[in-house]
Amino acid sequence: MTISTNAFSVNGKTYQPAAKPIVVICIDGSADEYLDITSAHNRMPNLKAMTVNGYRGMVRGALPSFTNVNNSSIVTGVSPAVHGISGNFFYNAAIDQEVMMNSSEYLRAETLLAAAANAGRKVGVVTAKEKLRDILSFKLNGIAFSAEKANLAKIETHGIENAEEVIGFPTPAIYSADASLFVLRAGVALIEQGMADFLYLSLTDYMQHTYAPEAEESLAFYEAMDAEIGKMIALGAVVGATADHGMNAKVKQDGTPNVLFVEDMLEAQFGEGFRVICPITDPYVKHHGALGSYVVVHVPDTSKINEIKNWLTIQPGITEVYDRATAVRVLEQPEDRIGDLVVLSGRDVVVGRKPQYHDLSALDGTLRSHGGRYEEMVPMIISHPLNAAYRMKAAGDPRNFDIFDFTVNGTN
Amino acid sequence: MTISTNAFSVNGKTYQPAAKPIVVICIDGSADEYLDITSAHNRMPNLKAMTVNGYRGMVRGALPSFTNVNNSSIVTGVSPAVHGISGNFFYNAAIDQEVMMNSSEYLRAETLLAAAANAGRKVGVVTAKEKLRDILSFKLNGIAFSAEKANLAKIETHGIENAEEVIGFPTPAIYSADASLFVLRAGVALIEQGMADFLYLSLTDYMQHTYAPEAEESLAFYEAMDAEIGKMIALGAVVGATADHGMNAKVKQDGTPNVLFVEDMLEAQFGEGFRVICPITDPYVKHHGALGSYVVVHVPDTSKINEIKNWLTIQPGITEVYDRATAVRVLEQPEDRIGDLVVLSGRDVVVGRKPQYHDLSALDGTLRSHGGRYEEMVPMIISHPLNAAYRMKAAGDPRNFDIFDFTVNGTN
Repeated sequence: MTISTNAFSVNGKTYQPAAKPIVVICIDGSADEYLDITSAHNRMPNLKAMTVNGYRGMVRGALPSFTNVNNSSIVTGVSPAVHGISGNFFYNAAIDQEVMMNSSEYLRAETLLAAAANAGRKVGVVTAKEKLRDILSFKLNGIAFSAEKANLAKIETHGIENAEEVIGFPTPAIYSADASLFVLRAGVALIEQGMADFLYLSLTDYMQHTYAPEAEESLAFYEAMDAEIGKMIALGAVVGATADHGMNAKVKQDGTPNVLFVEDMLEAQFGEGFRVICPITDPYVKHHGALGSYVVVHVPDTSKINEIKNWLTIQPGITEVYDRATAVRVLEQPEDRIGDLVVLSGRDVVVGRKPQYHDLSALDGTLRSHGGRYEEMVPMIISHPLNAAYRMKAAGDPRNFDIFDFTVNGTN
Repeated sequence: MTISTNAFSVNGKTYQPAAKPIVVICIDGSADEYLDITSAHNRMPNLKAMTVNGYRGMVRGALPSFTNVNNSSIVTGVSPAVHGISGNFFYNAAIDQEVMMNSSEYLRAETLLAAAANAGRKVGVVTAKEKLRDILSFKLNGIAFSAEKANLAKIETHGIENAEEVIGFPTPAIYSADASLFVLRAGVALIEQGMADFLYLSLTDYMQHTYAPEAEESLAFYEAMDAEIGKMIALGAVVGATADHGMNAKVKQDGTPNVLFVEDMLEAQFGEGFRVICPITDPYVKHHGALGSYVVVHVPDTSKINEIKNWLTIQPGITEVYDRATAVRVLEQPEDRIGDLVVLSGRDVVVGRKPQYHDLSALDGTLRSHGGRYEEMVPMIISHPLNAAYRMKAAGDPRNFDIFDFTVNGTN
């Protein structure tokens, strides 16, 4: 089989792929510490080889440091200000409704996956969670399915039939290490069988939400991921990996969740009428209870925005507060899908609405979460050496959503 | 010889040292990437052993992410708001002078080193640069000398005579890998010869300013550091290591320095009369040209502070701007030693005054620097396992200036 090397352009960037399988992996929730600790246990030989032969460094993610936001950035190559996905939920003041934006109808930019397919690449997208598939497969002429619903994939809607047989593994439970490993195994199978030569593999962070890096469960998980990545490299693929966001424990010294209930705080200080949106909220609550380190606030009396901002800024645990116009610039947000204020919290602090909106009884273990600045910096690993221009780019302020650019254009 | 296990308290924390040599190392400018890359080359076996047998994770430094600020925090166990050292320079408006604060007369907190000595420990402090010695040896009854001036150390003023003979190496050049390696070798010698059992070893970041992690010069430097750390562990020491700050390239795509000259910017927008202080400025300019990612601004017309703050906040490359009261809270600064505004810049951006104040011709190689938020997170490595309470503490929002607390109290 021949692999297309046609260049394609999307959202202002041009991609010139080599005639090799190209694989980009988003290791959901992979703070750099997971790589450090597992490597020290000699359980990531392929990561080590990639570091020595290719590139390893840190890149800056998009904010809020959530999954959909960063996956949307990775497949479009642009920030949330451009692609419009700023979380799982926003409040649409015009229709007075909280709107879920887990669907491609909210995506304001084309994807480079669709563009690669149109340019002649055989594109394969595999995501752990079904919720992401709609955005990732936007206008895509290729394979796109989720581990979660692999057994339901159909040729006319997903570009693949009998996925379990193709991959050789059964559809995994979504709250498991296998949910992510299945995605990587699917990648290996699609390359091996010549079904895809341009792949995006997006994992899930259930393991990182549940286990710290030194836990044996985590070590074994990273070791198993490393083995699958090694298989893809052995098949001749150029592999680039990054994360959508990091992950930190968000607990007090006694191990209980360290939460600031911002709606309660604002009501106590300024009175009724505030609406706090937690854009991490999604149908999968088991790992974080809808608590992350980023919320937006809709203020009843907009003449008080500055006063409220200044008060919030100095509350212990709050790290940054921006009004809408500033958040658009500083945090690269879409103006119409945030709030009057955007609030970020510290490394060990999550922000929420009120206790009744957050069911923490469903947590498996301790509260580990993300969304803020301390989950912004994530690793980037490339299997092949970077050329001079991309070594220079990597030494600047590279973004996790440049990962396709680095993997495709940086290794030529 | 017996080692004192007397507890001592300072600045609100109590330390209960074990009867073993205790060594804390500040690896100046050691962004975590240096450890990652050198480890992948199999050149840090002792780091690997510490990670597996002890602890490795990330800790948050003090801001601004400068050497003196963080060394002062490490030896006092408190933030700059408490100890008062907020950089190398500040503008004292009362006397209309720019004041260098590289001396212990500006230190507002006692050091735990002096307290350890008073409690019966044999304290040994070795710093690469002479400039730090005065602060680190404040009220200390023990050994304190610099690599830079090792040959000038006298028993009555430094607690040691003939340092070169004791250590077995000559006084190194300050702009060299040896400047830091000498400090570690001194630590090994002081333990071996029973001259110290409670050590603080503070290195210099000339190598990190000059070389990226993948450069052979850097790999060899980290390998050599690792060997000395291994010797201390083999001598029975409990070793804790952290960094004062990280390090990032601060250059444009063409490799030239990426500088925002804030005084020029403010004059162009708001007129004359601004005073921008670069608190990174020090007598050692060869590695950074007095350019870091943090400046303070004194404003001629204080009624315009908010307007100026809002304007600066949205300038590309600027990441955070605070007025004085907010900086005191959010950045833990001493109110009287900052400015009307505090300004931080991005991962690849430095802020300065005007071009004529920054001589970049002295740089060895490219501009790599620090001072801002993207050099705030640094590694922490402990040679011995953490107890349950300190594992929990490490999973919260641990600080680099808790390193003595972790090393002394966390491994009991």
